[in-house]
Amino acid sequence: MFTIDKYFDQAGWQKFTKASEGRETPLLVVDLNRIKLKFEEMVELFPNFKIHYAMKASPAVEVINLLSTLGSNFDCASIYELDRVLDCGVAADRISYGNTIKKAEHVKYAFEKGVDLYATDSEADLKNIAENAPGAKVFVRILVQGSDTAEWPLSRKFGCHPDMAIDLLIQAKNLGLVPYGVSFHVGSQQKDVGAWDDAIAKVKYIFDWMHKEEDVKLKMINLGGGFPSNYISEVNSIKVYADEIKRYLADDFAEEEMPEIILEPGRSLVGGSGVLVSEVVLISRKSHTDLTRWVYTDVGMFQGLIETLGEAIKYPIYTPTMETSKEAGTVVLAGPTCDSADIMYEEAGYQLPEELAIGDRIYWLTTGAYTNSYSSIEFNGFPPLEVVYVD
Amino acid sequence: MFTIDKYFDQAGWQKFTKASEGRETPLLVVDLNRIKLKFEEMVELFPNFKIHYAMKASPAVEVINLLSTLGSNFDCASIYELDRVLDCGVAADRISYGNTIKKAEHVKYAFEKGVDLYATDSEADLKNIAENAPGAKVFVRILVQGSDTAEWPLSRKFGCHPDMAIDLLIQAKNLGLVPYGVSFHVGSQQKDVGAWDDAIAKVKYIFDWMHKEEDVKLKMINLGGGFPSNYISEVNSIKVYADEIKRYLADDFAEEEMPEIILEPGRSLVGGSGVLVSEVVLISRKSHTDLTRWVYTDVGMFQGLIETLGEAIKYPIYTPTMETSKEAGTVVLAGPTCDSADIMYEEAGYQLPEELAIGDRIYWLTTGAYTNSYSSIEFNGFPPLEVVYVD
Repeated sequence: MFTIDKYFDQAGWQKFTKASEGRETPLLVVDLNRIKLKFEEMVELFPNFKIHYAMKASPAVEVINLLSTLGSNFDCASIYELDRVLDCGVAADRISYGNTIKKAEHVKYAFEKGVDLYATDSEADLKNIAENAPGAKVFVRILVQGSDTAEWPLSRKFGCHPDMAIDLLIQAKNLGLVPYGVSFHVGSQQKDVGAWDDAIAKVKYIFDWMHKEEDVKLKMINLGGGFPSNYISEVNSIKVYADEIKRYLADDFAEEEMPEIILEPGRSLVGGSGVLVSEVVLISRKSHTDLTRWVYTDVGMFQGLIETLGEAIKYPIYTPTMETSKEAGTVVLAGPTCDSADIMYEEAGYQLPEELAIGDRIYWLTTGAYTNSYSSIEFNGFPPLEVVYVD
Repeated sequence: MFTIDKYFDQAGWQKFTKASEGRETPLLVVDLNRIKLKFEEMVELFPNFKIHYAMKASPAVEVINLLSTLGSNFDCASIYELDRVLDCGVAADRISYGNTIKKAEHVKYAFEKGVDLYATDSEADLKNIAENAPGAKVFVRILVQGSDTAEWPLSRKFGCHPDMAIDLLIQAKNLGLVPYGVSFHVGSQQKDVGAWDDAIAKVKYIFDWMHKEEDVKLKMINLGGGFPSNYISEVNSIKVYADEIKRYLADDFAEEEMPEIILEPGRSLVGGSGVLVSEVVLISRKSHTDLTRWVYTDVGMFQGLIETLGEAIKYPIYTPTMETSKEAGTVVLAGPTCDSADIMYEEAGYQLPEELAIGDRIYWLTTGAYTNSYSSIEFNGFPPLEVVYVD
């Protein structure tokens, strides 16, 4: 049966249980020290890479302040996130605007605040940047493969075909912008390290073309995020990702022409820092012969577990009776609202001890990313997720 | 091409445009008068039925106050909704607790506040009610068919098999509760009126069994919600629903033994009262040969349009160039966040004018239900949906 040791040593785990002791659930406990360790690991594994924390993964002031102190840069998805990170005292030259969907007045606002680095993937957005952030650096996001091996794949919403990327980079130059680089995103929680290889090869093609045909020397590759967190499925260590990605880059770019490399980790930095503490509200069966127990917890899709949508992200879950229970049975896990869509896992085959009782605590591990900011303001009246930070 | 007249007369439409004029988007405009008319229509069509407004559809104080004045009862999904409706001055005997998933302390709280009518569908919840709301009236929710004809179907999360319902009603009596009635829900936005017929037949069976075998005379049927709003697909008028449902009831229950009938409309009361006003932020294509335009609006799944999940609810959308445009083309409609799941319609084949331009307003009709309360607190930094009420 599941054991907690796979995720935490005893002292690490006690921080979470202690912080949640006697407190009402649901409650997200975030251990800032784990974010610090992850950041330091990433800096060590990717020397000379610039890390722009994808703050959408967890936009809390506590997290921003910590990463700012550690020297991180930041990627923001909106002017609201920009305001947050500026309010934390981060200088504008450490901030990129990574959303390719931007209102004109928002670009203007960011530029006035000093932001000089913008993602784009379309002609209209490029013109918008040229008009409202004249002379700024732009990088073009390309569409890449990887959706079948990412647990939270990225669809076609962002990015453009590489041919169009070249046109946009040329146009950027003509519009007085700095055609600065190329970005891609292989999909969040990407399990296939090889996805970066294919993407880097596409970038190399664009770099060469721009150099030979347009005499433009691009300066930066933004490798996006996609590095995994420890959910249920087995993933490689970040070291394996680092070693492979550095090798792919070295294969395509000679040392003296190696561009600036930006990483945008979000999930991999903060995911493992969070444990969502919930309580079993109800256990029931739908008929006398129902083999499956329905387990309803006081947290659901609309208070932080939205990434269970389509059962995409499979969080490890822990409940104390696992330590002693001999028998476990399949359960459906559902949230507390009257919404039928508020079911976290019906097909995934989660098993919980037969002894599980109403009032027991269920701990959702690796819930530090994409949880609290997604909470609904008051769906079914339930308040947004409470968060407590420890270090 | 789409015309607005199908949904609004000129004066009705002007209320929305006037209220949103010069205001920042996204903005939800709610016309309280339309809720009033819907409520009055329902009272007229269902004389002698008790209406419990399913406040989860739109829990705003403005809506509660209006419906309270009009004499509505209320169904709440949590103690937080209960507090809201009590704060509006609604007496506890006009309130039911419709969620079958309840913490013990929440039942206690509701009972102390005077709530005397509880939904249940499991033994554990029934015992919880018996302990914390001694002597209260309970109704058992049964599982019914209807998921293939409801646009927002209800899965198996709520309800139990009719056999188990009988056991629960017997047990309720033994636990000192009042076995009061039976409820079901045919699925939200249920297009097949016949779904109520099958469900009522099941209820009749339970009523008869309880009477003959247990000498218990059940007093109430809760027909749930499920009455539709005007989205894109054709639906019958509420009058058709009323006529048919009354006929089904009359078929199964003689006039002198007709139980108290409760309705729990949510969507059908408030859906048509709302227009979500948004702005086109970006229009792009992914490659030179892409036939589909991507249209990104400043509202998305995480600021109120969550019911577009799986493209389930298809909102009618209107943009002023529809009036003059001769050509329309297929679009993908997506929201403003960096989340790849924030795509409202990719498969549904929405068409918008070729003249559509960045900055144009797009009006999402029939967005009065299940929108603002679902908004995320700050996903990608974007604030929750603003709402303005007019009457």
